[in-house]
Amino acid sequence: MELLDAFKWRYATKKYDPTKKVDQVLVDKILEATRLAPTSSGLQPFEVFEITNQELKNKIAILSHGQQIVADCSHLLVFAAWDNYTAERIDNIYALTTTEREQPADRYKEYTDRLKNMYLGRPAEVNFAHTARQAYIAFGFAIAEAASLKVDATPMEGFLNEELDILLGLGEKKLKSVTLLPIGYRDVANDWLVNLKKVRNPKEKFITEIA
Amino acid sequence: MELLDAFKWRYATKKYDPTKKVDQVLVDKILEATRLAPTSSGLQPFEVFEITNQELKNKIAILSHGQQIVADCSHLLVFAAWDNYTAERIDNIYALTTTEREQPADRYKEYTDRLKNMYLGRPAEVNFAHTARQAYIAFGFAIAEAASLKVDATPMEGFLNEELDILLGLGEKKLKSVTLLPIGYRDVANDWLVNLKKVRNPKEKFITEIA
Repeated sequence: MELLDAFKWRYATKKYDPTKKVDQVLVDKILEATRLAPTSSGLQPFEVFEITNQELKNKIAILSHGQQIVADCSHLLVFAAWDNYTAERIDNIYALTTTEREQPADRYKEYTDRLKNMYLGRPAEVNFAHTARQAYIAFGFAIAEAASLKVDATPMEGFLNEELDILLGLGEKKLKSVTLLPIGYRDVANDWLVNLKKVRNPKEKFITEIA
Repeated sequence: MELLDAFKWRYATKKYDPTKKVDQVLVDKILEATRLAPTSSGLQPFEVFEITNQELKNKIAILSHGQQIVADCSHLLVFAAWDNYTAERIDNIYALTTTEREQPADRYKEYTDRLKNMYLGRPAEVNFAHTARQAYIAFGFAIAEAASLKVDATPMEGFLNEELDILLGLGEKKLKSVTLLPIGYRDVANDWLVNLKKVRNPKEKFITEIA
């Protein structure tokens, strides 16, 4: 199947069948897609929480305006971005990079000095706005990978971020929640959206060619 | 090919072969992927500019810290998000939705009233932060689609946004540039990154399972 067909197939599932679980092999592929996603300067400034605990999903459903999909989904993925850039975080990634590439430890020093110079003087909220954007690219990759595997998914932003951060102890990890991605299998009989046409702006309104 | 293999194959291309052009059929698939990407409340608050004009690519390269990839790529995609939400923009999308789905014009009125209530009182920069995030999901979809077609791409944030907005006349369209995506074919002999290992945080540091 071409990826575009998967993009046409997917939709923001509104009702999951709670009895159908996604095979862990497929979940791991979706997680691997997020891990492989590109990030600015390769800093990978986010983490993903994979939640199957029913009690916890129920609690997060309450923090998501009571949306039942959060409780009914097979796996709930929480994307959480760094609350700020720090010298240590930047150095850790580039220490890993030089080790993995068998390069001298100072191979990227000039580059990381430039990053530190750019990021470390900025307010935390400006940096978080940037780390959150990186998480969104991976969020896109996860949605794409799920669609390619015919796993249903519902991209979600509508939840109480600060309450979720407390519930998951994200503050101690210097992370802040950004998005949720319930995954599972649609309950066709009870999903109001499943048979409605996908609507998008026509190409001529959406794309401007400058040749 | 599985999509994950495409994600392993792709990398942020650092040198394009300017003589190799991407077939328009493939470019159109990448653009279609961006059009099909999910957005918050289905508002699709962004547009994409597809630039092949060499003079314009050269000018944008200058605005991108002189990065030659912008000039050498086959097609340059510019992602530009709504500068703000407006009642008209929200109504336009839902007028299209009800028309396409052959629903009563007021089918989503309660929902769009809620959106207007939430968005229209907020500062423009808060709303732009939100529209930009939606563009990032589509940016992820474009990168994924390109990889699946074995088209090289370079996700880019490093450019002078305001100058690019002026150059492309985005202000008149109430848009602001967010990201660039040069696409084309790698110049293997001259790309310093092409043969370096892709480095990512190990899964155990990146994923937290809560079962």
